[in-house]
Amino acid sequence: MAGLFHRRLRLRTALRWMSPLSTASPPAVVRTLPPGFSSGLLQTPRPVSCGVHCRELHAGEERPTPSPTAAPERRPFSRVTPEDMAFFSKIIPGRTITDPDILEASNVDWLKSVRGFSEVLLRPQTTEEVSQILGYCNSRNLAVSPQGGNTGLVGGSVPVYDEIILSTALMNNVLNFDSVSGILSCQAGCVLENLSLYLEDSDYIMPLDLGAKGSCHIGGNVATNAGGLRLLRYGSLRGTVLGLEVVLADGRVLDCLATLRKDNTGYDLKQLFIGSEGTLGVITAVTILCPRKPKAVNVAFLGCESFEQLLQTFQLCRGMLGEILSAFEFLDRECMRLLNTHLKLANPITDCPFYIVIETSGSNPTHDEEKLHQFLEEAMTSSQVIDGTVATEEAKIKALWSLRERVTEALTHDGFTYKYDISLPVERIYQLVTDMREHLGDRAKSVVGYGHVGDGNLHLNITSPTKDPDLLASIEPFVYEWTARFQGSISAEHGLGLKKRNYIYYSKASLAVALMGNIKIMLDPKGILNPYKTLPDDLQ
Amino acid sequence: MAGLFHRRLRLRTALRWMSPLSTASPPAVVRTLPPGFSSGLLQTPRPVSCGVHCRELHAGEERPTPSPTAAPERRPFSRVTPEDMAFFSKIIPGRTITDPDILEASNVDWLKSVRGFSEVLLRPQTTEEVSQILGYCNSRNLAVSPQGGNTGLVGGSVPVYDEIILSTALMNNVLNFDSVSGILSCQAGCVLENLSLYLEDSDYIMPLDLGAKGSCHIGGNVATNAGGLRLLRYGSLRGTVLGLEVVLADGRVLDCLATLRKDNTGYDLKQLFIGSEGTLGVITAVTILCPRKPKAVNVAFLGCESFEQLLQTFQLCRGMLGEILSAFEFLDRECMRLLNTHLKLANPITDCPFYIVIETSGSNPTHDEEKLHQFLEEAMTSSQVIDGTVATEEAKIKALWSLRERVTEALTHDGFTYKYDISLPVERIYQLVTDMREHLGDRAKSVVGYGHVGDGNLHLNITSPTKDPDLLASIEPFVYEWTARFQGSISAEHGLGLKKRNYIYYSKASLAVALMGNIKIMLDPKGILNPYKTLPDDLQ
Repeated sequence: MAGLFHRRLRLRTALRWMSPLSTASPPAVVRTLPPGFSSGLLQTPRPVSCGVHCRELHAGEERPTPSPTAAPERRPFSRVTPEDMAFFSKIIPGRTITDPDILEASNVDWLKSVRGFSEVLLRPQTTEEVSQILGYCNSRNLAVSPQGGNTGLVGGSVPVYDEIILSTALMNNVLNFDSVSGILSCQAGCVLENLSLYLEDSDYIMPLDLGAKGSCHIGGNVATNAGGLRLLRYGSLRGTVLGLEVVLADGRVLDCLATLRKDNTGYDLKQLFIGSEGTLGVITAVTILCPRKPKAVNVAFLGCESFEQLLQTFQLCRGMLGEILSAFEFLDRECMRLLNTHLKLANPITDCPFYIVIETSGSNPTHDEEKLHQFLEEAMTSSQVIDGTVATEEAKIKALWSLRERVTEALTHDGFTYKYDISLPVERIYQLVTDMREHLGDRAKSVVGYGHVGDGNLHLNITSPTKDPDLLASIEPFVYEWTARFQGSISAEHGLGLKKRNYIYYSKASLAVALMGNIKIMLDPKGILNPYKTLPDDLQ
Repeated sequence: MAGLFHRRLRLRTALRWMSPLSTASPPAVVRTLPPGFSSGLLQTPRPVSCGVHCRELHAGEERPTPSPTAAPERRPFSRVTPEDMAFFSKIIPGRTITDPDILEASNVDWLKSVRGFSEVLLRPQTTEEVSQILGYCNSRNLAVSPQGGNTGLVGGSVPVYDEIILSTALMNNVLNFDSVSGILSCQAGCVLENLSLYLEDSDYIMPLDLGAKGSCHIGGNVATNAGGLRLLRYGSLRGTVLGLEVVLADGRVLDCLATLRKDNTGYDLKQLFIGSEGTLGVITAVTILCPRKPKAVNVAFLGCESFEQLLQTFQLCRGMLGEILSAFEFLDRECMRLLNTHLKLANPITDCPFYIVIETSGSNPTHDEEKLHQFLEEAMTSSQVIDGTVATEEAKIKALWSLRERVTEALTHDGFTYKYDISLPVERIYQLVTDMREHLGDRAKSVVGYGHVGDGNLHLNITSPTKDPDLLASIEPFVYEWTARFQGSISAEHGLGLKKRNYIYYSKASLAVALMGNIKIMLDPKGILNPYKTLPDDLQ
């Protein structure tokens, strides 16, 4: 009982802490490139104005509340000098990038929602090089923004100011694969899809799969504790990642690169780095346990009349498909409309308020099909599902999956997108979408919900024709307060990055946040690693 | 490549560090109760003699090397005073135990291999009580030994000197169970088997199962990151534990008691406490994701001619049983002999060098039986398996499982037991048993191997008629050096506790161990929580 009591206490504290912000009209996160910042390398950058923070206040003036999503002031890190550049060029000759065109892609996130002003991109190939770079940066007090595939959605993967970008793009070698145990060791910069292709010949698969697989790096996946489409079946990276090699802020190499399923020799340090978004160390290599490639995969795309029916279908499905159920995803009618409109993807079934993607993966095709058909028959007979289609061939499976996977892409064509990645008790997840729609009325262009029903993870997305601070002020903190009220998490799988860092108190107790600060100081006392991210401003 | 290079470097360092110890003749861990220690409460205990440590050395005398398993000197914690007792009695009236007979069971471990001399056993019922007790102990510099079911095997669950024993035995309430999500919240002192029984009505099971289930507490399971028999199917506690409530050394309550499958809001602090053996905080409540109760369970007990055949059977089994395989365990002929001799358990099949226990758990009894029979036919036809029996009813399933589960018990009747819990690449696990047998010759009574093939986890046990320091000196560090040579872990699932703490460098890099020390200092600056355990003496 004590635990629940404490939990309630904490939520009240969080709400109290955040509520003053609700009256503010927060500036959007995208900042304009200050003139001169990209014009020439190594000329001393002008100090970045960060709006409200630097403004002098005069008597009688109302104090503007800083937006919790806006970047805080630049911290007093050193600026990169020609001597620094000479050092980097010696360590990684030809891989010290200053070309503004190349830098542009690394300064701006995938959503084009945040922009940094870095003038140096470093591309090490080995752990030793990363170690030398970080050791040097730490001694020089130079801030570093580690970057994988730059597919993050919370502004965690690009610099905020002039941090040096440390890319893992050239650290893309597989180190070892043991086809008996299914344990893969690789460098952090391996692209997820390339690893999947690599494993195909050995009849194994990666334990995670996500829409960004063609670009995201496994190191970035681990650093952000990526969830994705297979979590329901194979669990989170906290279980499947067996070992990590991490370079600490001061350049020391922490070798926790075990290749064992079990190891209880002391504290499991690698867990600190999983999901720490590059703020505690730079992951340079990963060992991961890969499941056998299933002999049979089936995908069903179904339609439901209501979210209640969808939940009933989920319960039925878990009982009847049991151990072969590998995904249970959903999208709503609004998502389908965006897929039709912006990507010209056709709805393969009757128009419905809700669509489900069910995937089975098993070792016996006959058994799996039998289970799936029995389930579908039951679901149709009991009217939980009103229409559906099933795919067993790869091309059709891909086509059905793309209806779920390409919703994010469709949204980018719909306008400026406000993205929320919420964990809730599964029976609550769609209620947030309904309440948000009602709350916003016609102020939003689209309010859509999709996500991982099996994990209680909703992706709530709201679009407007252009960036709209008033709309944002209506969405936040409403969405976070709603989530906290039902003991949800304000970031299920995307992390906190720059955009969500100050909302952490909605989902974490103050003591937990304070301990995060202690850990940060312990591992990165100068705070050079991915500054302004993950930790709230009151701890930075 | 860099990662592997570093790994090799580390192992060499470890071997170098530990090798001087191999020449020592280490005293055994069991220490004799100093006279007077149990004779009366609160009289100032005499200082405990810790053998070699306290002995004065004279010129010309050879300096004895302290055994890495022996307890280090008592650290300068305060002694319990009548004022302290008055405080405890006020906080938890009637639950402050000083009766020597009751204390005896809490001072000695299950294996009767280590003994503490505590004179105070506290039995709080709530988190608030634990918080008050620890806050007080921390301010008074009183050491505390947290205790669950006291079923640990490495001397981690009993005091070493006069530490106050803080038992979770009365914290045994289920807080909540959500039958839709399968998420269970309970206090730390719930006995694992009771939780399994509690879930039975709701058609769920606990994601872990182990021989000690009738006594072990879920909090202790989490604190030691217990593995057990279901890890192959449901993964480790690092994935299934969704939330923890922990009281820190200074009494502050850290509420990470989430009930969500996904939460990426900052560092996952609960992971620090999973497997930390009570050295960083006292776990008071746990939320855990429970799998659905399988509709069909089958157990096959098979015999193989060689370990190579056993491994071939494992590979075949993984392919053919796939997602319904829930355990693949083994025991050798020597284990069977001990079961016959000491527990009068009969071998249900022909005498063989190796026995396998295979369990399937699935959602469709017909499909599962079909898969199992196809597999068995293939295994028999290809002569990988020479005899076997299958059980589908609960009583017979239990009987077959007891052959694997009761090996530990049989060993206790065979003599003094030296226990090793080793992780290795699966193809190596039995080679250690063979090499050890050859290495020890007739100096050991029995050298047996059993364990979790599916997880690459060997339980190597060696018995002698009585405690035998010479035998121990032959076993250690041989066993650890052997393990390190093949990149194994010297503790797969038992933890380090008192007995294995100084061997940590065989499986962890020096930097990792140093960081463990930093974390300990951060969370427990006075070191009052479970002193002398987990961390090596050079860090204590």
